[in-house]
Amino acid sequence: MSVTEVESTFEVASSPFLKAIVNQIRANDSYGTYRAWSDELLLKPYVVTKAQKREISVDGEVDPITKGRILAFYRAIATRVEEETGQLCQVVIDLSHEGFGWALVFCGRLLVVARTLRDAQRFGFDTLEKTALEGEKIVQNGVNAIQKFPDAAKG
Amino acid sequence: MSVTEVESTFEVASSPFLKAIVNQIRANDSYGTYRAWSDELLLKPYVVTKAQKREISVDGEVDPITKGRILAFYRAIATRVEEETGQLCQVVIDLSHEGFGWALVFCGRLLVVARTLRDAQRFGFDTLEKTALEGEKIVQNGVNAIQKFPDAAKG
Repeated sequence: MSVTEVESTFEVASSPFLKAIVNQIRANDSYGTYRAWSDELLLKPYVVTKAQKREISVDGEVDPITKGRILAFYRAIATRVEEETGQLCQVVIDLSHEGFGWALVFCGRLLVVARTLRDAQRFGFDTLEKTALEGEKIVQNGVNAIQKFPDAAKG
Repeated sequence: MSVTEVESTFEVASSPFLKAIVNQIRANDSYGTYRAWSDELLLKPYVVTKAQKREISVDGEVDPITKGRILAFYRAIATRVEEETGQLCQVVIDLSHEGFGWALVFCGRLLVVARTLRDAQRFGFDTLEKTALEGEKIVQNGVNAIQKFPDAAKG
């Protein structure tokens, strides 16, 4: 079994975060373009290896497809935080033309996630498993923030 | 004395908020385009009467000059909150092409200002005095939020 095959057998179903991304993509699929696609195929664009990253220029503007990928990632974070805490979250992605910016998830007056984005043209992770791990980590940090500052999250 | 003259005599110097907007504009004036302009002239685009608003179409994209005006307004808010509390603030303006979006000012994990923007193409106020009043009100709300949630503001 090759390395690629090992990676592709990582179970999407085992990660609530990856499931949340898939739901995001399917919810926005008004024309049914992806209806026949597997979850793994939908998530494939999130896997960008280091070698692939080097080949993506960061000179140009961030293309709409990459922007959509980043937005779906953070909307999935927001959904997972909502599921864990019962608090509604908002997502704002602010990207300059040069691929710099902010990814913000907030809830009341509390910033659940505040991440600077750099070289957003290259947004992605080494493997699907790392995508899942990174997502779950951000979700957990967000949940912790709400538990630490419950009043700000309500306000 | 006409109404216009009464309005134009509103003293910019009397409003720390208006002074903060002027400083924003002058700080970004790398080519010295506005060097000879009075503060009042620099602030004039913030005055958009109801009649003028009706004449501005909200169908098109928000033009870069209007975006700059909105950004300078909220950066001035951030500066004033910093002056009052000693806490560093970040500003994020997220505008869709249709003029909808968010204006966010945050400090640590705390959202000092979270305003939805609507018809951003028409951003402006009836008079300079109202611009000042609205700005000072938002600043005061922000300062209150930091006093209410000091730990979240520290991150």
